Amino acid sequence: MLVEHPVDVTFGDCDPAGIVFYPNYFRWMDATFHRLLQDKAGGHAALCRKLGAVGIGLMDAGLNFRVPVRPGQRLQFRLSRIDWGDRSLTLRYSADLEGRTALEGHEKRGIFVVQEGRMFASGTEPLRGLLEKG
Amino acid sequence: MLVEHPVDVTFGDCDPAGIVFYPNYFRWMDATFHRLLQDKAGGHAALCRKLGAVGIGLMDAGLNFRVPVRPGQRLQFRLSRIDWGDRSLTLRYSADLEGRTALEGHEKRGIFVVQEGRMFASGTEPLRGLLEKG
Amino acid sequence: MLVEHPVDVTFGDCDPAGIVFYPNYFRWMDATFHRLLQDKAGGHAALCRKLGAVGIGLMDAGLNFRVPVRPGQRLQFRLSRIDWGDRSLTLRYSADLEGRTALEGHEKRGIFVVQEGRMFASGTEPLRGLLEKG
Amino acid sequence: MLVEHPVDVTFGDCDPAGIVFYPNYFRWMDATFHRLLQDKAGGHAALCRKLGAVGIGLMDAGLNFRVPVRPGQRLQFRLSRIDWGDRSLTLRYSADLEGRTALEGHEKRGIFVVQEGRMFASGTEPLRGLLEKG
Repeated sequence: MLVEHPVDVTFGDCDPAGIVFYPNYFRWMDATFHRLLQDKAGGHAALCRKLGAVGIGLMDAGLNFRVPVRPGQRLQFRLSRIDWGDRSLTLRYSADLEGRTALEGHEKRGIFVVQEGRMFASGTEPLRGLLEKG
Repeated sequence: MLVEHPVDVTFGDCDPAGIVFYPNYFRWMDATFHRLLQDKAGGHAALCRKLGAVGIGLMDAGLNFRVPVRPGQRLQFRLSRIDWGDRSLTLRYSADLEGRTALEGHEKRGIFVVQEGRMFASGTEPLRGLLEKG
Repeated sequence: MLVEHPVDVTFGDCDPAGIVFYPNYFRWMDATFHRLLQDKAGGHAALCRKLGAVGIGLMDAGLNFRVPVRPGQRLQFRLSRIDWGDRSLTLRYSADLEGRTALEGHEKRGIFVVQEGRMFASGTEPLRGLLEKG
Repeated sequence: MLVEHPVDVTFGDCDPAGIVFYPNYFRWMDATFHRLLQDKAGGHAALCRKLGAVGIGLMDAGLNFRVPVRPGQRLQFRLSRIDWGDRSLTLRYSADLEGRTALEGHEKRGIFVVQEGRMFASGTEPLRGLLEKG
């Protein structure tokens, strides 16, 4: 496990059915990733300066939802694994609710750079080096 | 195509990299579904009363992202198809940006009912009847 | 001071200027209020059942912003005082950033009940009793 | 009236009480301002380049709420007036719901520039010139 991110679900995270409005789960999955960047590299902005990148952006994201979650409950997000490709990385997440797995999902990201006015995904080795050290 | 939902991307939808913060795409995909419910059945609350359900909730959602989107641009979301299962439905979406496909994704949803204190996904036939008429 | 609510600001809370998108401050002010309800009365839903209310809803809200806040910083929200009126309560908040006051604001709320199809703000005494005990 | 911004309220904008979660109203007030910048100056980024500014940021914001708003309803936001100060501008908004005023509010903003590592609010004349022409 690479990083944990606890979320206390509040009233405003929930919809008229009384359960979490699902885009918020993606917001929290993203926050879990940014907690890793904060811990390992001083955050997204500092990391992008080091890598000469404009962003560690999304190519694909997905989640499955197994348990409805309500105000006052605590979700524990976990980034459990990173699968490294040449020009993308896939991050595997889950979230626990009172000892049960409430969610599982992924984000596929690229390290986007701009050269001669064109944006493209660069190699992942420099990021891997930064995230796997220390 | 079953329903269209235009979105004018604003400053506050975007992140420090200057592009749409990706959970917002899920918010807009969900709004496209609710526009269908509004058009066909008077909205989620009226529909749930008809079906005896507590919600048409999510089992799974995913999106891929092909083009960065910036403030001032217009996305045209489209719900193009519904694949009907016995106890779930899978909705297929895309979004166009200036004539290009910027996003493709899906939502898998169930019609959740509560009986004797237990929540489960009920059969999809009554919803299919409501959404396919008129 | 009645309740504290720490917020770790993440990338996705911020806008293309690199600072917190201001509606999020209202989201966190609301979450501070709901943390009080959770601590004192088991949350908004349980409280509304006790009071026969449909919601502890907003009449007015305002904030002033003194310091830009960036990803990776921690805000400490505080609900410092409640001014009780007959049919409304005004909650006074501030948020600290590294020892400085970054925000000050308020929410004016009513306890909304429905009788004979009409919604109105009921007396605040029962809520005051619940929040001031224990 | 300077600009109008229609909002179709969707399910996900609403909370467990079934009405709009109030920070969304601030999000839509902000979007109304950015629609003005888009119309008059090509958007916030282009405007900031012209003005040598890092952002047209918030000093204060407030709203009062007169009517609960539900999924499927349309709000018509209006920016009705700008009060120009030397180093700030105050924008006056309202939103109509089916012919009634549902909201009234304001944003006080400054034009923030950075010189020698310090951020401060600059004079408003250049912005006033841009917004009042055409």
